[in-house]
Amino acid sequence: MAAIDLNSDLGESYGAWSMGDDAAMLSIVSSANVACGFHAGDPAGILKTVKAAVERGVVLGAHVSYPDRVGFGRRDMDVTSGELIADVIYQIGALQGIAAAAGSKVRYVKPHGALYNRIANDAKQGQAVIDGIKAIDPTLVLMGLAGAPILDLARKSGLAVVAEAFADRAYTPQGELVSRREAGAVLHDPQEIANRMLQLAREGTLTAIDGSTIKVDAQSICVHGDSPGAVAIAAALRQRFEAEGIAVRSFVSEA
Amino acid sequence: MAAIDLNSDLGESYGAWSMGDDAAMLSIVSSANVACGFHAGDPAGILKTVKAAVERGVVLGAHVSYPDRVGFGRRDMDVTSGELIADVIYQIGALQGIAAAAGSKVRYVKPHGALYNRIANDAKQGQAVIDGIKAIDPTLVLMGLAGAPILDLARKSGLAVVAEAFADRAYTPQGELVSRREAGAVLHDPQEIANRMLQLAREGTLTAIDGSTIKVDAQSICVHGDSPGAVAIAAALRQRFEAEGIAVRSFVSEA
Amino acid sequence: MAAIDLNSDLGESYGAWSMGDDAAMLSIVSSANVACGFHAGDPAGILKTVKAAVERGVVLGAHVSYPDRVGFGRRDMDVTSGELIADVIYQIGALQGIAAAAGSKVRYVKPHGALYNRIANDAKQGQAVIDGIKAIDPTLVLMGLAGAPILDLARKSGLAVVAEAFADRAYTPQGELVSRREAGAVLHDPQEIANRMLQLAREGTLTAIDGSTIKVDAQSICVHGDSPGAVAIAAALRQRFEAEGIAVRSFVSEA
Amino acid sequence: MAAIDLNSDLGESYGAWSMGDDAAMLSIVSSANVACGFHAGDPAGILKTVKAAVERGVVLGAHVSYPDRVGFGRRDMDVTSGELIADVIYQIGALQGIAAAAGSKVRYVKPHGALYNRIANDAKQGQAVIDGIKAIDPTLVLMGLAGAPILDLARKSGLAVVAEAFADRAYTPQGELVSRREAGAVLHDPQEIANRMLQLAREGTLTAIDGSTIKVDAQSICVHGDSPGAVAIAAALRQRFEAEGIAVRSFVSEA
Repeated sequence: MAAIDLNSDLGESYGAWSMGDDAAMLSIVSSANVACGFHAGDPAGILKTVKAAVERGVVLGAHVSYPDRVGFGRRDMDVTSGELIADVIYQIGALQGIAAAAGSKVRYVKPHGALYNRIANDAKQGQAVIDGIKAIDPTLVLMGLAGAPILDLARKSGLAVVAEAFADRAYTPQGELVSRREAGAVLHDPQEIANRMLQLAREGTLTAIDGSTIKVDAQSICVHGDSPGAVAIAAALRQRFEAEGIAVRSFVSEA
Repeated sequence: MAAIDLNSDLGESYGAWSMGDDAAMLSIVSSANVACGFHAGDPAGILKTVKAAVERGVVLGAHVSYPDRVGFGRRDMDVTSGELIADVIYQIGALQGIAAAAGSKVRYVKPHGALYNRIANDAKQGQAVIDGIKAIDPTLVLMGLAGAPILDLARKSGLAVVAEAFADRAYTPQGELVSRREAGAVLHDPQEIANRMLQLAREGTLTAIDGSTIKVDAQSICVHGDSPGAVAIAAALRQRFEAEGIAVRSFVSEA
Repeated sequence: MAAIDLNSDLGESYGAWSMGDDAAMLSIVSSANVACGFHAGDPAGILKTVKAAVERGVVLGAHVSYPDRVGFGRRDMDVTSGELIADVIYQIGALQGIAAAAGSKVRYVKPHGALYNRIANDAKQGQAVIDGIKAIDPTLVLMGLAGAPILDLARKSGLAVVAEAFADRAYTPQGELVSRREAGAVLHDPQEIANRMLQLAREGTLTAIDGSTIKVDAQSICVHGDSPGAVAIAAALRQRFEAEGIAVRSFVSEA
Repeated sequence: MAAIDLNSDLGESYGAWSMGDDAAMLSIVSSANVACGFHAGDPAGILKTVKAAVERGVVLGAHVSYPDRVGFGRRDMDVTSGELIADVIYQIGALQGIAAAAGSKVRYVKPHGALYNRIANDAKQGQAVIDGIKAIDPTLVLMGLAGAPILDLARKSGLAVVAEAFADRAYTPQGELVSRREAGAVLHDPQEIANRMLQLAREGTLTAIDGSTIKVDAQSICVHGDSPGAVAIAAALRQRFEAEGIAVRSFVSEA
């Protein structure tokens, strides 16, 4: 039976501030990218989300970030490799500790925000992220942008990788994400999104913004939960997959 | 052969700011209480100290704190039990990750500063610290003040404990530390300090500030490294122990 | 014409996290207690709220806090007087700068959360707050709990004060707030709340939780905006005041 | 009589961590670039340094930074203009408050570290810094790198500027600083440094690293105090200036 993973960014509340509907999303996704405290997430809030994920059987990933809480990890930073390696280890370790307290384990790492975008093509910071992951646990899987050089870099370094596509984003004919600054970059129609992701799961292709068909080799699809509309899109996507006979489950086989 | 553990607070630099002489202290102590980022310690600095400790065969402990970097964890805080449990888990996990990257493990937990003092007698926060430790790894040892109620609380909760004495502090006839606000609270003479600690290691007693002899059951002695004078005192203490046939080694047998 | 001030805690978003409906509240209140960055508020968010307040003619107050963002300033902290004085000056100064950029001025100071509760009765921290305010600008008004010792302490120190009551809180026969841990501590009925506050504004009295009538000498009423229900209560209160011929305006005459 | 300003980065301690010898430097320099809390400086420490500067008659400048304490403001960040404007206002305001508490005023602004380097040539972030300064107080002077485009940008925007040279840095034939990564970038000989700065003060020229003579139009010289050697160089420089009949005094005439 065909299968696909759905992942989402969770645990992004901070102290008195809440963000997203983790409870709703945990009934939709098979993988949770959990904030580790650098862009979002306080220990008590992370623990709560991790416990809920474990109860639901959702696989845990460390959503590591630049140390930039006020900027939500969305601002590119010229960190050194030494700093980045240690920041990655620290964040994964913290989430491993919380996962252990919840009776589970961290299985993958997905860099967040500006770090995610930076390492897609920046081999220096990318290698630092890879080195950090390997130093703490070389069995961790790196989740990255389908088609981006970081995936090859990680494979060559001996890390398993998972490529992801974005459910609500338009793609260029070259297979890259259309910048959010351009018209049509973000898709809003649940039906259209489900159709596109179904095609992705079955055929490994997507229709680019110019109408051409591109190859996108992705084992996971990122969905958002930061608004009621986003949660509805994600829920509709899961239902559609299941109705069409495609299982939603983690890429981690033993999960 | 008789033996005693020497422990010290390390990894307390932060980014561009340095504190203490970790390299010097790691050649003196058998146990390193390593800052976890809440009162001190940035990931790159912690990693550097942990690697040096592992090279020296010094046993690693998590020096967990209230989240108060600007106050260096020295200010009492009314945190809830839920917050404290999660803060303890997060910090231990982060240090475990860094220890794993350095090829080692965290073996014990020593609360820092205001948290250390608070839980010595406060059963509510003390239980939260214990619960946090047990949640992440029940084989971790809790290090606490010799004679303080927290040690019994931890034992009853199923945690192994290690009691510590302070090399450079005067004691009351009741076996408590003389407050730093009082004259004579801090000792400075290396010879006197070494004599006192030798008595402690051999006989389990100390001379209190009023001249009386008190029982102090401690398996570890805390030494400081925050000034050249403090490092010299610690070095002299180790030499004296070895000269007198008392081994300086961790309470962790397999270390 | 009789008049009363309505104040509310605003500017409490932080980076990507939003809190409260500042726009709605600024059309209701006459005084804005604006977060200064220690418990909430990032510079860009504070600036946005301050500009909106200035456009509305709402008077600006500095909502100073312990340095505890993850705890939202709700946790009691044993800060020293020297630390607290400097923290108060720094926060007021930061808000003064933002107020200047918006073409206005900070007119009063209201301590937040745990600091507010602590100084109501703690003369040491209370004096430090007073000393901080006087050091930066002795014409600033201190807003505090009606009937609390801090108000007398401030007056004796030469600061002008404004006493406030809480619209949605029950009072003890001694004129203190009923603890939130007790049943009936928080009121929810808009009609009842408006009736109580009307009595307060006209007669300077409130009905305590035991049914007795107590004197409460308050020139300002604190309303909340952290939920749609809270905003509705505040809006209803303002309408009721105006319908009954009581002007809602700041205690700062020249504002 | 000829005159030159000497400036130095001060107030860079943080809580329990100390940095630099502010007391020594305040007897040498005429202008203090005081940290505002974003890269360094806690309120109590800043207040202490500002009070000492005011006692010495040293003019106060706001040393504004990216919000990156763990990186000491040394890492380039892609902040938005709106964020940067508000960050600049907030930091200047905080220091103005502390200056007011010490009976003085902030007279100029010198961006720190990565922000300083970035805006030297980046017109977008440079304009944001200028706009922030103008919004809070258009009489503030911007201190920037001699010869850098930011100075013209600020002048065109209506800000007064002061150009600075670095006492211990080598210059390229184009008048830029030799990168620290290159050999010979940092000068260490007190005599050579004093000779160079004397030439700068008298003739407005420096000898570049290739031996050519370049024009450097600077009204202020930056000296460092982060090591005993650096303090000694700065002290020697001041003595030399005074021995040669060049007054060391601020560019702020009424100071």
